[in-house]
Amino acid sequence: MTIKLTDVAKKAGVSPTTVSRVINHYGYLSQKTIDKVHLAMEELNYQPNSLARSLQGKNTQLIGLIFSSVGNPFFGELVEKLENKLFEKGYKTILCNSADNKEKERDYLRMLAANKVDGIIAGAHNLGIKEYEKVGLPIVSFDRFLADNIPIVSSDNFHGGQIATQALIQSGGEKIAIFTGTNRSNSPTNSRLEGYLATIKKNQLEPYVFEFDSHYSPALKSLEIKKILKEEALDSVFCTDDLTAILVMNEAVKLGLKVPEELKIIGYDGTTFMQQYFSQLTTIVQPIEDCATLLIDLLVQRITDKDVALEPLYTLPVKLIQGEST
Amino acid sequence: MTIKLTDVAKKAGVSPTTVSRVINHYGYLSQKTIDKVHLAMEELNYQPNSLARSLQGKNTQLIGLIFSSVGNPFFGELVEKLENKLFEKGYKTILCNSADNKEKERDYLRMLAANKVDGIIAGAHNLGIKEYEKVGLPIVSFDRFLADNIPIVSSDNFHGGQIATQALIQSGGEKIAIFTGTNRSNSPTNSRLEGYLATIKKNQLEPYVFEFDSHYSPALKSLEIKKILKEEALDSVFCTDDLTAILVMNEAVKLGLKVPEELKIIGYDGTTFMQQYFSQLTTIVQPIEDCATLLIDLLVQRITDKDVALEPLYTLPVKLIQGEST
Repeated sequence: MTIKLTDVAKKAGVSPTTVSRVINHYGYLSQKTIDKVHLAMEELNYQPNSLARSLQGKNTQLIGLIFSSVGNPFFGELVEKLENKLFEKGYKTILCNSADNKEKERDYLRMLAANKVDGIIAGAHNLGIKEYEKVGLPIVSFDRFLADNIPIVSSDNFHGGQIATQALIQSGGEKIAIFTGTNRSNSPTNSRLEGYLATIKKNQLEPYVFEFDSHYSPALKSLEIKKILKEEALDSVFCTDDLTAILVMNEAVKLGLKVPEELKIIGYDGTTFMQQYFSQLTTIVQPIEDCATLLIDLLVQRITDKDVALEPLYTLPVKLIQGEST
Repeated sequence: MTIKLTDVAKKAGVSPTTVSRVINHYGYLSQKTIDKVHLAMEELNYQPNSLARSLQGKNTQLIGLIFSSVGNPFFGELVEKLENKLFEKGYKTILCNSADNKEKERDYLRMLAANKVDGIIAGAHNLGIKEYEKVGLPIVSFDRFLADNIPIVSSDNFHGGQIATQALIQSGGEKIAIFTGTNRSNSPTNSRLEGYLATIKKNQLEPYVFEFDSHYSPALKSLEIKKILKEEALDSVFCTDDLTAILVMNEAVKLGLKVPEELKIIGYDGTTFMQQYFSQLTTIVQPIEDCATLLIDLLVQRITDKDVALEPLYTLPVKLIQGEST
C-alpha cells in the first residue's frame, strides 16, 4: 500500500494543506505542528514525490549552481550559504564545479535545462552570451556579465579598490602595487583595479600594476611574486584576492621582509575562513551572506514571474577589516 | 515542434543509439563522434529529458552528497572531486551541507529519497543508524559508521596517528600532546588518537590528550590553545586536523614560541589547498582523490546490483609531507 499525503494528515491530526506546507517549507507553521507532521511522516515512512509533482507541471524545486570550484574557500563559503538558504525555501541544490572548463559548463547548462531545474545561479565565466541566452531558464549571476537579461549581483568592487589603496597610503605606503588577475571583459571585478588606479592618481602616486595569468598554479605564482618583491622594492601590495595575499605573505617571510614595517599587504574577499584562521591579514570583506540572500531573492522573483523587471546590476557594500599586515 | 533524439541522429549522421550514448556518457565513442553529436544538439537546441527517462523506470542520474560543510577546505575539496568524477560518469550532484544539524540531515534524507536519487554519499554524522537504514537507497559513507550494510571508505587513521607521533619523536619531541575533537563512537577517525597513544606507549613517553569540543568556534578554541601552551610547556603538538594546527601556529607566534625549535607542530588532512598555501606545516595527507574514486566506484556497484557484496570498511594509505613545523 502506498502511503498518501492524506494518511499523514490523518495521523498527525492536521489538514492535508498543512502537511503540504511542511513538506514545501511554505507559509507560517508552529514548531509543534512541524514536529507533529515530521513524526507522522516518519512513522508511516512517507516520502513526498517531487518527480510526480514536477510531472503535473509543477516546479521541480531544483536549482543549479555553476561556480568554478568549491575547493576555493570563497566559492565554498558562497555555495554553502546558497545551499542553506535554498534549503530553507524548499529547494534542492544541484552543484556544478565548472573548473574553468568550457565544455563542462556547456554540458551542465544542457543537463540543467534537461532536468528542468527551476533556475540557475551562475558565477562561472567560460561561455559567451549566446549559450546563456539559449538556456531559457531563470538565471541570476554572481560577479559576471552573462547576457543582457541576466541580472548581476556583485559587491562594490570600485569602492573596495579605493579603500584598500587608501588604507595602504594611510599606513605610510608610497610605492604601492596591485597584484591582480588578467583582465576579463565580462567581469565587474575589474573595477577593483579601477578603484586602485583612481586612488593612486588622486594621491599623485605612481601605479604599479602586476597581472597574473589566471591559469598559473600557486607555485608558479609564488615564483613570480618572489621575483617582483626582490626587484621592485615595493613597500605595499594590494592583492585582489586573499589567496594571493597569503602567497605574498609567505614570500615576504622567506625574503626576511618585515610585515607591515617593510611590506604592507592587503587582501580581498574576507571569507569567514580567512577571518577565523588568518586574522593577521588586513582585507576587504565582501558581504557573502547578503550576496547569497539577494541572489536567491532575485532568482525566486524570476521563477515566480519570468517577466519581472529586475535591475541589470545590484551592488552591495564592502568593508575593510583591519589585521596586522598594514 | 519538439526536437527528438532521432532528429539529432539524422542531423549528426549517426545512429540514435550513438546519440543516447553521447548524452549518457556511456560506451566507447571517438571525440569526433562526440563533437558531431554535440554540434547537432546545439544547432537543433535539443535537450534530453532526464525526467522523462526517469518516468520510464530508468535512473534519475542524480546522486546526493551529504557532508557537514563545503566551506571547510577538506570537505570542499572532497565534494569538488566527487562532483567532477560523478559528472564524468553522467551523474548530477545534489549537494547537502548538513552543518551538524540533525533536523536538516533528516529532511535531506527524506528529500533525496523523494527525488528518487540513484544513491547517496554521506560524510555527516548527526543521525543514528535507524534513519540511514530506512532510506532504502544505495549509500556509501566517508569516514563514518552509519549502518551495518553501508560500506565505509576511510584513510588509515591509526597509521596516520602513528607516523605523526613518530615524526615528532624523531624531531626530538619529548612532551608530545595530541589536540583532537571529542570522541565520536561512530567514527573511524578516533583511530588517530589510538595510533598516537600506541606510539607514545611504545616509546615510554607520557601521553597528553586534549579534547576540544567540536561546537567550539575557532576563536574559543584559540583561547583554550593559548592557555594550554602557556601552562603545559609542551614541546610538540599533533593536531588531528590542519585547521587546528593553523590555530596552534598562530598562538605560538603570538606567545613568541619558535616553531619548530621550541614547539613542533604536525597537522592532519593535507588538502591541496594546505599544500599550496601553507606548505610550512608538516602534515599527514589523506588521499582525497583516491577516496573520491573509491566512494563512487562502490556506489555505482551498489546502484547496478543492490545485493553486491561489499566490505564493511575500505582503508586507504596516508603519507607524511614534511614542512618546516617539525
